[in-house]
Amino acid sequence: MKKVYKAHIFYTKEKGRFEVIENGYIAVDGEGCVTSVGTDLPSVGGEVAEIIDFGDRLLIPAMNDLHVHAPQYRNQGLAMDLELLPWLQNYTFPEEMKYADTVYAERMYRRFVCDLWRFGTMRACVFATIHTESTRLLMQFFQEAGMGALVGKVGMNRNCPEGLSESVESMVQGYESLLTINYPLVRPIITPRFVPSCTPEMLRACGQLAEKYQLPVQSHLSENKDEIAWVAELEPESTCYGDAYDRYGLFGQTPTVMAHCVWTEGEELELIKRRGVVVAHCPTSNFNVASGMAPIRRFLNEGLRVGLGSDISGGHDLSIFRMMVYAIQVSKMHYQQNHQLPFLSLSEAFWLATKSAGSFFGRVGSFEPGYEFDALVIDDSDLNFDHYTLLERLERYIYLGDDRQIVHRFCRGKEIKIF
Amino acid sequence: MKKVYKAHIFYTKEKGRFEVIENGYIAVDGEGCVTSVGTDLPSVGGEVAEIIDFGDRLLIPAMNDLHVHAPQYRNQGLAMDLELLPWLQNYTFPEEMKYADTVYAERMYRRFVCDLWRFGTMRACVFATIHTESTRLLMQFFQEAGMGALVGKVGMNRNCPEGLSESVESMVQGYESLLTINYPLVRPIITPRFVPSCTPEMLRACGQLAEKYQLPVQSHLSENKDEIAWVAELEPESTCYGDAYDRYGLFGQTPTVMAHCVWTEGEELELIKRRGVVVAHCPTSNFNVASGMAPIRRFLNEGLRVGLGSDISGGHDLSIFRMMVYAIQVSKMHYQQNHQLPFLSLSEAFWLATKSAGSFFGRVGSFEPGYEFDALVIDDSDLNFDHYTLLERLERYIYLGDDRQIVHRFCRGKEIKIF
Repeated sequence: MKKVYKAHIFYTKEKGRFEVIENGYIAVDGEGCVTSVGTDLPSVGGEVAEIIDFGDRLLIPAMNDLHVHAPQYRNQGLAMDLELLPWLQNYTFPEEMKYADTVYAERMYRRFVCDLWRFGTMRACVFATIHTESTRLLMQFFQEAGMGALVGKVGMNRNCPEGLSESVESMVQGYESLLTINYPLVRPIITPRFVPSCTPEMLRACGQLAEKYQLPVQSHLSENKDEIAWVAELEPESTCYGDAYDRYGLFGQTPTVMAHCVWTEGEELELIKRRGVVVAHCPTSNFNVASGMAPIRRFLNEGLRVGLGSDISGGHDLSIFRMMVYAIQVSKMHYQQNHQLPFLSLSEAFWLATKSAGSFFGRVGSFEPGYEFDALVIDDSDLNFDHYTLLERLERYIYLGDDRQIVHRFCRGKEIKIF
Repeated sequence: MKKVYKAHIFYTKEKGRFEVIENGYIAVDGEGCVTSVGTDLPSVGGEVAEIIDFGDRLLIPAMNDLHVHAPQYRNQGLAMDLELLPWLQNYTFPEEMKYADTVYAERMYRRFVCDLWRFGTMRACVFATIHTESTRLLMQFFQEAGMGALVGKVGMNRNCPEGLSESVESMVQGYESLLTINYPLVRPIITPRFVPSCTPEMLRACGQLAEKYQLPVQSHLSENKDEIAWVAELEPESTCYGDAYDRYGLFGQTPTVMAHCVWTEGEELELIKRRGVVVAHCPTSNFNVASGMAPIRRFLNEGLRVGLGSDISGGHDLSIFRMMVYAIQVSKMHYQQNHQLPFLSLSEAFWLATKSAGSFFGRVGSFEPGYEFDALVIDDSDLNFDHYTLLERLERYIYLGDDRQIVHRFCRGKEIKIF
């Protein structure tokens, strides 16, 4: 049966402008897709439709997290005193080794999925670990919750502790076993950790898997200067870090998202553009791990596809609303240095988190007809104590709100209730 | 009667190190001052003492906000699209004009004080507006709450709308009438808005008031490059922005706090040091208004006194815990540029927000004997779902927690309950 939702509706069809419909209606069909959005109660062609009135609340697309490490959940908000490479060795790899134990994995992954839900993230590109069984559990918990995810069993076979190294053969077998799982909203994604963790054989096998099964790809790119120098040493024939993925079929040959790109420029930027690679901008992580500030305005000027990522536990905050605020702030520091680079507007940041990031999951992140209905209902009555305009209410929610104001969550048309 | 509090106790006697006492005790006398802190139940010299056991909770000094604009409370989380000078003209001055109306002021100021309380801030250096009656109300609400504040009726008589301009004479009279109020924890502070808003006569009168009544001083300093250029034009005889205050007796002649200092260097830095002026670092505001990133490590290396400020509504977040996170992040961007400038440790950021900032209010911000007992009790049981160490629990609270985990608040020994 069709459903019709009534509320104050916001979305971004284009990056520079909010669509705002006061007391508007969205009709959603039995497949969970938007069939109409507008100011009038839609005709549903003689069908019976249930009308759900959210009154004075705000109805917005749900959040998409383009880069998050589920097995770093326990370390969220911890271990903020090192840069990327020693941070991995000292804090992150020891934690990820624990996921050989599926009992530990279950306990942490259930909490992790709940927390994504809590902050309104309905789709995520997730790194798991090398462990196939734990990764399978993580996929299962997303499926049970009804949320969408691309889940990556991680490929790693060098420069890491023994317990996090896996043979190429075992990696391929693990992936092929995960491919037998058939969930409507949860799929595997090929996930070489990053070039320093993967031998050429591992990278090649990842690229072959992606091509053979037409799987998407995720990894890290140009996050930190020491890392970039290391990659140049490890892959001396590559013309840039991005090229080191490209040569193995891991850079846009299938849909690809690369996290960070803090120091991407010149040839790498051109390659990202040519290959249609999506950039996952992770501003809090880039602060916390002292990586730097990614030049998102330049990327947008070049027409690159960009979304936002929490990057737990380099990042400390799972809220993609908070990532919008940080993305604007980072862009303001670039603007302060160079007024030729206008900082991100709120609607641009919102578009990054919704329609732009959502495109990696399909027709997700907008309320245009044909889009899957991923949505949040926001009760901002505690923040709305004066005569604020609708756009001011949204802005205040993004800057000041948290999980308490999110009162309903939908993924592909279905209300998602975890607790 | 003496009270003895038992919990896991944290404070920073020195800036680089936490004092951590597992299941420790703090004894507080009838004046609200700490008489002992340690691992053992203190002897209270034959007196009867009430023992309050907070069990597994964390007990930390309360937060101090060294720079916040109460009449910008309605604009919190709004109007993030302009730099300082046009931001003042377009958003801030029109809002502040509303405080001619004491009914409006009462409604907003009551909420503002509640929100400071909510986020665990027990002492604040507050800008009000030019309006004496509204400022009096704000002082009264702090007093009624039992919280500490230095409240500044703002001096302004140029480069602002007529409704925010006041004659020097009226400013002086207003201050003298506020000085007749006798609250134990709430006092006026001399508050020229900033040099561009004050004629030389206004600045001189402010300096004279500060000297005559031995009042502290607060203002803004070197926040934005356009502002600094404007000050150089307006006060051509000054050798730097700070000197433009100093020449009028507003730069450390009495205890002085200056907000921002984003672009302070050279002579101005020397003058701040020589005069013992306290710097209120407002990192979120400096991002939001695209001002820049203040060089706090340099200031600490020079031995300057520094605290943290939310700077609502340039800043969008009232939580001083969030300011600690931002301060560390800003210092990491300086470190990323120059590894000779180590980024702030968590204990340094904590010290900035507690003992360092607290010193502006007296013996506030630590649990050493003789300090006023300003404290928060944190129930982090929702965050503490694994075997975290005590320091990890504190770090996770600072990075991930919010007002929900603050279950008791004390100011000068008295529990403060607003709701």
